Amino acid sequence: MTTSPDTLIVQEVAPRDGLQIEPTWVPTTEKIKLINALSHMGFSRIEAGSFVSPKAIPALRDGDEVFKAITRHPDIIYVALIPNLKGALRALDAQADELNLVLSASQTHNLANMRMTKDKSFLGFAEISTQMKELVKLNGTVATTFGCPFEGKIDPNEVMRLVENYLALGIQNITLADTTGMANPVQVKNIVRQVLTLITPEQLTLHFHNTRGLGLCNVLAAYEIGARRFDSAIGGLGGCPFAPGASGNICTEDLVNMCQEIGIPTTIDLEQVIQLSRKLPALLGHDTPSQLAKAGPNHHLHSPPDYIKTLV
Amino acid sequence: MTTSPDTLIVQEVAPRDGLQIEPTWVPTTEKIKLINALSHMGFSRIEAGSFVSPKAIPALRDGDEVFKAITRHPDIIYVALIPNLKGALRALDAQADELNLVLSASQTHNLANMRMTKDKSFLGFAEISTQMKELVKLNGTVATTFGCPFEGKIDPNEVMRLVENYLALGIQNITLADTTGMANPVQVKNIVRQVLTLITPEQLTLHFHNTRGLGLCNVLAAYEIGARRFDSAIGGLGGCPFAPGASGNICTEDLVNMCQEIGIPTTIDLEQVIQLSRKLPALLGHDTPSQLAKAGPNHHLHSPPDYIKTLV
Repeated sequence: MTTSPDTLIVQEVAPRDGLQIEPTWVPTTEKIKLINALSHMGFSRIEAGSFVSPKAIPALRDGDEVFKAITRHPDIIYVALIPNLKGALRALDAQADELNLVLSASQTHNLANMRMTKDKSFLGFAEISTQMKELVKLNGTVATTFGCPFEGKIDPNEVMRLVENYLALGIQNITLADTTGMANPVQVKNIVRQVLTLITPEQLTLHFHNTRGLGLCNVLAAYEIGARRFDSAIGGLGGCPFAPGASGNICTEDLVNMCQEIGIPTTIDLEQVIQLSRKLPALLGHDTPSQLAKAGPNHHLHSPPDYIKTLV
Repeated sequence: MTTSPDTLIVQEVAPRDGLQIEPTWVPTTEKIKLINALSHMGFSRIEAGSFVSPKAIPALRDGDEVFKAITRHPDIIYVALIPNLKGALRALDAQADELNLVLSASQTHNLANMRMTKDKSFLGFAEISTQMKELVKLNGTVATTFGCPFEGKIDPNEVMRLVENYLALGIQNITLADTTGMANPVQVKNIVRQVLTLITPEQLTLHFHNTRGLGLCNVLAAYEIGARRFDSAIGGLGGCPFAPGASGNICTEDLVNMCQEIGIPTTIDLEQVIQLSRKLPALLGHDTPSQLAKAGPNHHLHSPPDYIKTLV
């Protein structure tokens, strides 16, 4: 996986952010097969599960088993999403390579999603950092950075404050997440430009959803001003409980296809991702928002109809 | 409908490019109702039908009746898509305000779609222009400008040659169409920049499909270098026979929402478009690719769950 400063680094999140809202139970063995297949496609990170309350997210209640059973590729960081110390201890036990700590920029969203205030989230993160920063990689996510379905607009100063809080706890890698797909390219440039005064592009991940169709526009906007690391989900899996039927995460194969078409290097094997994506409807029992899985890449040409031979 | 030089002009094409591939027959009265409803939402043009062989496109075989029965808004140009002189005569009889002449940059696609060579298409267009340019507005479309599903890449010099051919026939308004969604933002900037050396932004329309998820990225790219007129379809209707299930035209409400979020002025009433779009699944018997119809605009906030009151 050779990279250059121009390389767009793709981090696969379908096993976590994709599967967490699926109404159909995906068996543990299928989750493991999915992650093992993804492990040979060029991703730098795979978010493989979460350690949250099994009551809150029953779809991912088998995180321990999944992390213990996957076949790890030595170049890939296997990430677990963590809301609190209890989850961090479980993830550490399951040998996650990285803990992705999450809180929301919106107080209302943090209360709804994490059932605690932002201050309380940070108290837990401080404890996790103190106990574990020598044992495991830590990443800090600011959810609802670009908008909250309850509160609406989010003050960029609050996002900056939360990033600074993470840094003060010794958590050096940061994800800005557009949790419910409310970001737009102008806003993305403004916020990413500000956050890149605090951390380097290597420390920053952008996590976009395509809920309102702007996911790839937001990637281009962020990339243009220096961001390089992006989360995406094969098949465009995931979603938002407040927008049933709307697209979820930006779709890995659509993202990689865009990069290839415009000459942005990635390390991803697009053909393999498309082939795997095309198996998702059978696994999940429904179609996915992937465009490439349906249309194929541009260079997959079609045969013209036979009647044209009679016309020339 | 006041506009400024920054205004992005939206031209609605669902009644033509949207409905033409629908397998379910949309009754003439429903087509008329759809166009009449669209006529009060701020569009500058509505592509209301086509006059092609009813065998080729049975879904639009009632173009004559539709054009004669719609209630016309005085500010809107009602457009008919035309492949040849026969269709032009029918459209003129039905009192279309503008004839949108179409040929493909790809010879193979023109043979497959129009059943004649590009030269033969232009012979017909020359006849149409001579007979009708004083009677009706004329627009010339270059389909497959950004790629052909049979031939692959298209030489931009060929696109320039075809635009010059239209201009030589006295056809001053040009549409560059990404018929099967193969365009990318870098390519769009290159080609639009070249074409804008021949015509003004007022004469140029971009017609993008979202087949590979790049429709709105392409709009932003074209807008950035001066293009102002864009086709789109309510509900993102339309599609490509070579990519079943893939998105069709860029979605009007997703386009207008993007413009509103980033401060590009339009003349479109977004709320009305969303309300109309939400009626399409009942009319067509299937879901549409519209993101806004599902998710709603950002400012439609949701109520947080009651339990958060007990947490603070």
